[in-house]
Amino acid sequence: MTSDDAGGGPGGIDRCAPVGRIGERAVISALTAAATAAGPADDIVIGSGDDAAVLDIGGSTVISTDTVVEGRHFRFDWSTPRQVGARAVIQSAADVAAMGGRTTGLVISIACPPETPVGVVLDLNDGVVDAAHGLGARVLGGDLVAAAEVVVSVTAVGALEGRRPVSLGGARSGDVLAVSGPLGASAAGLAVLSDAESGPESWPDVVALHRVPSPDLTQGPIAAAAGAHAMTDISDGLVEELITMSRAAGLAMEVRVDAIPRRGDLDAVADELGADVGEWVLTGGEDHHLLAAFEPASVPAGWTVIGSVREAGGPVPEVWVDGRRVGGPDGPDLHGWQSFSQPRR
Amino acid sequence: MTSDDAGGGPGGIDRCAPVGRIGERAVISALTAAATAAGPADDIVIGSGDDAAVLDIGGSTVISTDTVVEGRHFRFDWSTPRQVGARAVIQSAADVAAMGGRTTGLVISIACPPETPVGVVLDLNDGVVDAAHGLGARVLGGDLVAAAEVVVSVTAVGALEGRRPVSLGGARSGDVLAVSGPLGASAAGLAVLSDAESGPESWPDVVALHRVPSPDLTQGPIAAAAGAHAMTDISDGLVEELITMSRAAGLAMEVRVDAIPRRGDLDAVADELGADVGEWVLTGGEDHHLLAAFEPASVPAGWTVIGSVREAGGPVPEVWVDGRRVGGPDGPDLHGWQSFSQPRR
Repeated sequence: MTSDDAGGGPGGIDRCAPVGRIGERAVISALTAAATAAGPADDIVIGSGDDAAVLDIGGSTVISTDTVVEGRHFRFDWSTPRQVGARAVIQSAADVAAMGGRTTGLVISIACPPETPVGVVLDLNDGVVDAAHGLGARVLGGDLVAAAEVVVSVTAVGALEGRRPVSLGGARSGDVLAVSGPLGASAAGLAVLSDAESGPESWPDVVALHRVPSPDLTQGPIAAAAGAHAMTDISDGLVEELITMSRAAGLAMEVRVDAIPRRGDLDAVADELGADVGEWVLTGGEDHHLLAAFEPASVPAGWTVIGSVREAGGPVPEVWVDGRRVGGPDGPDLHGWQSFSQPRR
Repeated sequence: MTSDDAGGGPGGIDRCAPVGRIGERAVISALTAAATAAGPADDIVIGSGDDAAVLDIGGSTVISTDTVVEGRHFRFDWSTPRQVGARAVIQSAADVAAMGGRTTGLVISIACPPETPVGVVLDLNDGVVDAAHGLGARVLGGDLVAAAEVVVSVTAVGALEGRRPVSLGGARSGDVLAVSGPLGASAAGLAVLSDAESGPESWPDVVALHRVPSPDLTQGPIAAAAGAHAMTDISDGLVEELITMSRAAGLAMEVRVDAIPRRGDLDAVADELGADVGEWVLTGGEDHHLLAAFEPASVPAGWTVIGSVREAGGPVPEVWVDGRRVGGPDGPDLHGWQSFSQPRR
């Protein structure tokens, strides 16, 4: 990003004009102004507006990137640009939290059609900035390019602050599995939005959690400090993450559905929609709460034990739900969402 | 990225099959295998294949992101996927170099239509990995999503290794302006590719430099160590970068065209195409060589002095080329390339 005085700040820009007419520099100038207006800055040496940002993280740096595409990961008729921006940040920050890191900064790339109104890009950026500030992080820079559809990439960087990073594959036999928040809400919200008969206003809470998930990402550092052996965020659904953890550790994972925390309203939503609440809880992605393996005595407050880790009986992945095997090559088709919408091989 | 044994490594995957049929996980597995097969790893604590990567940079971290879009920043009939990947890396690494940083790692996001052959994504990734290794850097992770067109975002992170970061705006009156390599080659290569009559084989060198620029990015840390006051990489054309530097410093910048280094074959290419070699040198972007302001006695070996910095006579930007003002509001329309193809305001 480069700063640009010409063209005015966010206040001086015509929000209804297409991005292609206002020009990249003027829009980037407005985005930069919004990103640098406020927020934590202790560790920022050089922020947004130069060739690159410079920050003093101190110790190990955690880095992760995530991309969302209009029409595939979000719809502007279901989410505001601000919600889309916030969700993109939380997705990337959840990956940093899943290593035990605290997100300190992020860079964002926005691709959009030239005819996109400038206000859409500014609102999306506001969502990014707000979500970053909510995490105690700062927007460090970005890129704005023309494309056929809106594509938003967020790369988050974080600090371990002396904690050991928690990998995917470190679970040990005898560990318990625990989650940091209630599952299935985002899937329920998506189901409400997809249902022709129920309006979003009928179940506003789960719809809001689909639009912008609100995992407590401070639980990542807390789990790392508590000595978690393995951790990931639940982005593709619990079963999918258990399969990944099982494969990475070479161990079997088992969970009980009735132990998995879920919101009090989830059963009522499922009843109204004729949906299966268990499927939301097991396969619904995008809640971005954390899943971790701990020694039984080390589970931090705020985490709910949902199962355990044991030696595998054969080739991994080996995942069991209520005594039924789901993670094997011949298991039932109970998998999380994948970007290309194809069954897992 | 998550690692995935099922589906085989790069050797076991059908390169002609569409990404959407092979599935995201299997393709990511192949990409991860390629990224982790070799390359420098001294500072990598946890590499590609977990929720996020962890690296020990030590001291300040530099971070920058850049995005390229099919049909706008590259064309697959003009560049191979491997070249597209390499170029995306160099673009981001040039921003890190322009702060005085050495790129140590990067994350990549690839969006592509589900019908894209897997081989295209693997080749693109190979270009990313090769270019990263060429810079002494490592691919730390990434994301693969479906989209209407190919969009590649590279976020590079680098180390300052004790050097002071060199900002855009630090030029001082009395400084000389210098560049780290010959300009205009990428623009000439683009002109050859765009010309209906000359085939790329007639001027293979400039065409190759358009496909994959080859700036010496070690000059960034060298310039920082030499005490450069300001620096940027030439991505949007020399005049555009001078305008940015002038505005950021509040000073006037003047250059002489005959002092600007250019390849020996550039005049012959311009002659054949009936093009203006001066325009390529002044406004051609994407060479990604570095432009810096130094005290006259501090210009490192390998840099060419092209002009100087002085007090501005009025409002900035104020840029002079061969005694003609080009950077003012009433200057001639001699601007670099912008993503949205609109004249600067």
